Amino acid sequence: MSVTISDVAKQAGMSVSTVSQALNDKGRISPPTKDRVRRAAMELGYIPDSRARSMRSSRSHAVGLLVPDIRNPYFSELVYAVQDQLYSAGYAPLIGVSSCRASRQEDYYRILLSRHMDGVLVVPDGPTSPMLRTMLAREFPVVFVDRPDRTLPGVPLVDSDPVPGMEAALDALVARGSRRVAFVPGPESRSYTFREREQAFLDGVDARQGLTGLVVRQGFEDRPRAAATMRHLLGQGVDAVIFGYSADAIKAVAMEWEGDLRSRVPLVSFDDLEVFQLISPQVSVISQQVDRMGRQGVDMLLSMIEPGRQAPEGMGVDRRLRTQTLFVPRGLLA
Amino acid sequence: MSVTISDVAKQAGMSVSTVSQALNDKGRISPPTKDRVRRAAMELGYIPDSRARSMRSSRSHAVGLLVPDIRNPYFSELVYAVQDQLYSAGYAPLIGVSSCRASRQEDYYRILLSRHMDGVLVVPDGPTSPMLRTMLAREFPVVFVDRPDRTLPGVPLVDSDPVPGMEAALDALVARGSRRVAFVPGPESRSYTFREREQAFLDGVDARQGLTGLVVRQGFEDRPRAAATMRHLLGQGVDAVIFGYSADAIKAVAMEWEGDLRSRVPLVSFDDLEVFQLISPQVSVISQQVDRMGRQGVDMLLSMIEPGRQAPEGMGVDRRLRTQTLFVPRGLLA
Repeated sequence: MSVTISDVAKQAGMSVSTVSQALNDKGRISPPTKDRVRRAAMELGYIPDSRARSMRSSRSHAVGLLVPDIRNPYFSELVYAVQDQLYSAGYAPLIGVSSCRASRQEDYYRILLSRHMDGVLVVPDGPTSPMLRTMLAREFPVVFVDRPDRTLPGVPLVDSDPVPGMEAALDALVARGSRRVAFVPGPESRSYTFREREQAFLDGVDARQGLTGLVVRQGFEDRPRAAATMRHLLGQGVDAVIFGYSADAIKAVAMEWEGDLRSRVPLVSFDDLEVFQLISPQVSVISQQVDRMGRQGVDMLLSMIEPGRQAPEGMGVDRRLRTQTLFVPRGLLA
Repeated sequence: MSVTISDVAKQAGMSVSTVSQALNDKGRISPPTKDRVRRAAMELGYIPDSRARSMRSSRSHAVGLLVPDIRNPYFSELVYAVQDQLYSAGYAPLIGVSSCRASRQEDYYRILLSRHMDGVLVVPDGPTSPMLRTMLAREFPVVFVDRPDRTLPGVPLVDSDPVPGMEAALDALVARGSRRVAFVPGPESRSYTFREREQAFLDGVDARQGLTGLVVRQGFEDRPRAAATMRHLLGQGVDAVIFGYSADAIKAVAMEWEGDLRSRVPLVSFDDLEVFQLISPQVSVISQQVDRMGRQGVDMLLSMIEPGRQAPEGMGVDRRLRTQTLFVPRGLLA
């Protein structure tokens, strides 16, 4: 029952060579012809053999994307942007979720390699995977998105610069009269990205006369504790709170703090999640423009896979591309 | 630079046959031995060749999962549950997102087949893919999750029964004094799942003396229109609203309707999304228990892949397994 490329050529009324070029995206085949060939291949159930294909073409047109957690809406937005851009460029994305576990990263990388994928976009998480080191040693195309793995400085990276968004947020708070702002850096405060956000906060406070900042390292483990911590902070004269990690902000707004306190204290969180627009008052955000970041990550990876394809504009000699964070004032800051 | 299985055996201090069995999950190899072999393979960067593997073993231990939209939190919960269960069973999941487009479904299925995957879990969406028909004709293991493709009645299916949740929701509304309940069936009201929910609503209203129901087919296209529609419905004496589609419920709660109207009308929505707990008053939900559904879908697929493995309990002769929906009272109904 095996359908051959000759069967497809007969069905499409074309030569085997045209069909082969159309199916492998080679030569100068017009889009309508490609469509006709693909339809014929589909109708017959022709399955290009990956072995045969990888002998003829160095590319498989399949690319991996590994994220730590798909339930975090920030990552699901990233996955959406990346897969959309990959499909548009003629690649099929195969998404993996590591659930922050090293063994699952290894399993996923092993599949990618043994299945002849063209490259992978990775949101690095936790200890560096040995398999990833092997892939890099073999010059398998890898791009980090959202954050670097500091033990692998040479890998191309697309991430966002927290400074512009933080500066604009502090300006908005000062304009509204805030004098004492708390920053909640999140449970991963030792990781590079979160440390960078904290530094942007501290530098921003230093640069503004009359503004005091404090960093709150704990008290957001669950919703009741987050509500208690908020009450405590406000009792200490804190008049605005910035969250480095959106999950902490969600815990903080999940409960009332006391009377109408919540409706009087402006909150700002990293990550532009839909929920921040649905609660009242709305939470202002420092957006990482995850859609843009994801698309630029794809552009960078494809420039490594496709000979002659340009790296995206703005890429530095250090192979790092930073998107700007954007402050979106809402609720009490709108 | 190619590392062979003999190199791995030397590194691990074991025979080639033991290493081969450990890497392919065959024979009786103890977990510590497997670990040692895998660590040796990893250290050397040994990559099992998928061609060689597929000759030796009929299974690749990689399974696909195709969902229409990853940004919908309902699907990201499903993806989480499925991939977690697959990893636990020793399979690596490769997730695809069709973005509700037929061409992307085709691309994804083509990759699955040409890469020797063991099977696929599919949330069917839109017109039936010709590639999917080909796969089924070739007895490739396929399980539908969340909803059926009505043109392919023989395919095993795990979905949820809307009746228990709807009945409990109507009971709670009646107990609170509701007399006139509106049901918003969603934009996909012609699809099977949404029709089933609507039927459950109509049957439930019929069975309850003194209760009137109406179905609202439009007016939830965006947030301003949703707010206007809510005001209009309440003006007509509607005293509770049930949403068949959670995205409509989110639109409805995104704006104030008029004064404190929102705080007086109980809302119920299908799908237990986090946001419904964060807004005030909270929205009651009819949960599909998506975690359970995803895990049972995996169990069903693995029973088709692994000889001798039992189908999950509760599976009917029609190869359909229904999870029960669960009403979760919150806010005004708590």
